[in-house]
Amino acid sequence: MKILDCTLRDGGYYTEWDFHQELVHSYFTSFNELPIDYLEIGYRSNPMKEYLGEYFYCPDYVLEKVKKLSNKRLVIILNEKDVRPEHLDNLLSPCKGFIDMVRIALDPENLGRALKLAEGIKRMGFEVGFNVMYMSKWKQYGNFLSQIKEVDGVADYFYMVDSYGGVYPQDIKETIDLVKQRTSCKIGFHGHNNLELALINSLTAVEHGAAIIDATVTGMGRGAGNLKTELLLTALNAKEGKKVDFNALSNVVDAFENLQKHHGWGTNLPYMVSGANSLPQKDVMEWVTRRFYSFNSIIRALNNQKEKVQDN
Amino acid sequence: MKILDCTLRDGGYYTEWDFHQELVHSYFTSFNELPIDYLEIGYRSNPMKEYLGEYFYCPDYVLEKVKKLSNKRLVIILNEKDVRPEHLDNLLSPCKGFIDMVRIALDPENLGRALKLAEGIKRMGFEVGFNVMYMSKWKQYGNFLSQIKEVDGVADYFYMVDSYGGVYPQDIKETIDLVKQRTSCKIGFHGHNNLELALINSLTAVEHGAAIIDATVTGMGRGAGNLKTELLLTALNAKEGKKVDFNALSNVVDAFENLQKHHGWGTNLPYMVSGANSLPQKDVMEWVTRRFYSFNSIIRALNNQKEKVQDN
Repeated sequence: MKILDCTLRDGGYYTEWDFHQELVHSYFTSFNELPIDYLEIGYRSNPMKEYLGEYFYCPDYVLEKVKKLSNKRLVIILNEKDVRPEHLDNLLSPCKGFIDMVRIALDPENLGRALKLAEGIKRMGFEVGFNVMYMSKWKQYGNFLSQIKEVDGVADYFYMVDSYGGVYPQDIKETIDLVKQRTSCKIGFHGHNNLELALINSLTAVEHGAAIIDATVTGMGRGAGNLKTELLLTALNAKEGKKVDFNALSNVVDAFENLQKHHGWGTNLPYMVSGANSLPQKDVMEWVTRRFYSFNSIIRALNNQKEKVQDN
Repeated sequence: MKILDCTLRDGGYYTEWDFHQELVHSYFTSFNELPIDYLEIGYRSNPMKEYLGEYFYCPDYVLEKVKKLSNKRLVIILNEKDVRPEHLDNLLSPCKGFIDMVRIALDPENLGRALKLAEGIKRMGFEVGFNVMYMSKWKQYGNFLSQIKEVDGVADYFYMVDSYGGVYPQDIKETIDLVKQRTSCKIGFHGHNNLELALINSLTAVEHGAAIIDATVTGMGRGAGNLKTELLLTALNAKEGKKVDFNALSNVVDAFENLQKHHGWGTNLPYMVSGANSLPQKDVMEWVTRRFYSFNSIIRALNNQKEKVQDN
């Protein structure tokens, strides 16, 4: 199995994709000593109206700096909804020689459009990963399931993304079966930790044939966050004897723990409720971080939303 | 299935078993609205040399106060290593009419001694729970496995305690099978959260026939802590429609979150390493809370301990 760490990309939701130089240095040099295959450093994006930092755009000087610091295969991700084939030359030509894989984050509804994008990316010489969101609702997308076979020969990895953080090991097995029946593409899993199931879901995915797993240091990522890289490595070290340099691992964990104390990602009651009921945690994250509302009213609002009642 | 919340008992390791009156009030009144069967309020203990607070001794006025506040079945626990049959009258007579179940925390090595203690407790009219530690090492205790059958008719619940927080769902299944082959006593599970497996282990235990699960609010408990009561209830609400008053649940979670911020229970890299490798987390907890050592040196020390090398 391979591991992809996407701390800077997914953690950027808390820092607007700016990170202190010292943290960036510690991140890449620590990972040079760790058994991780890919590091996803951020997005490449067309200019946006609001302010978004370095790792949302990954300009040339970032690509050069990271390439110098890291001995890993490097990855950037594109938001499918914001990128069309005609943008690819502008977005990806500067990545040649620096970036090994380009991933596409996509809504299952847009798989057809994403396939066209992927063909363009492939022609430019990059590995291609599909990060397909909302795995708990895939069965509701009839077109999507019948289109999956078209990723053969286009995508190198086809990721199941547990967007709501609400799937259980049994769901992982069933969804992997669904995918395996339709494509021979290597399968990936990106788990969220609302119900503290990210580790067991990821290990279950690997047991059932997944070839690659995403994780982030301290679970840094939207809302309840992701599978913790340190948890995955510690488990694999004890279970399978994977060689882990715990000094390097604790260095990189230390480096992110202060940020965690400040931003407070990780699960809590509202995120548990949103995960368990497949409700979008983006709204919850805004409510919780603004602290305008008590947990009580957040949970009431979530329950109302679940029952399709308008919030007051 | 039944649920036992042991926040005050297990959380006392952080507060020396003293809790603010307001917190205690919020705890019991919130739980009156929640689908929990038993509340374990603390220990009953012979006098100790060091200072230990109210809920380590549960004197008469505590029993009376709690009985007035709570509509739940109440539980206290005895440390088997410190209690002999001749202490029972003194320790438990004052509990009559207040306490419904008495649990015994025991090392598997001392099951014979615990059985004698349990017979005395049973004669006094209490339900009896056995909380047997170190489930990941039970197979190494030959005498213990052959003695398990003797709990029939003595214990009402026979708990598997994941002392190190290192067991996986597969281990749960195997250990339940071991126990079921030997006794018809109802089985319980007390999980720790070092590897964020407490929820999946508990749900797996129930799926394979466990009758009762322990949990604590915010996971409050030694080291990495326990299964979070709010996580278990949220999962059961979404999966099985268990009726949960989320206002009451968020009230009690709010009440403990400040304490959590102060004491910082929950998993982290050293606890993950101790859990994954079945090392005692008591030592880790002391090292981490004293903050004399960097994470690096704690992890080095743990790895040395694992390899039976003397620490420097």
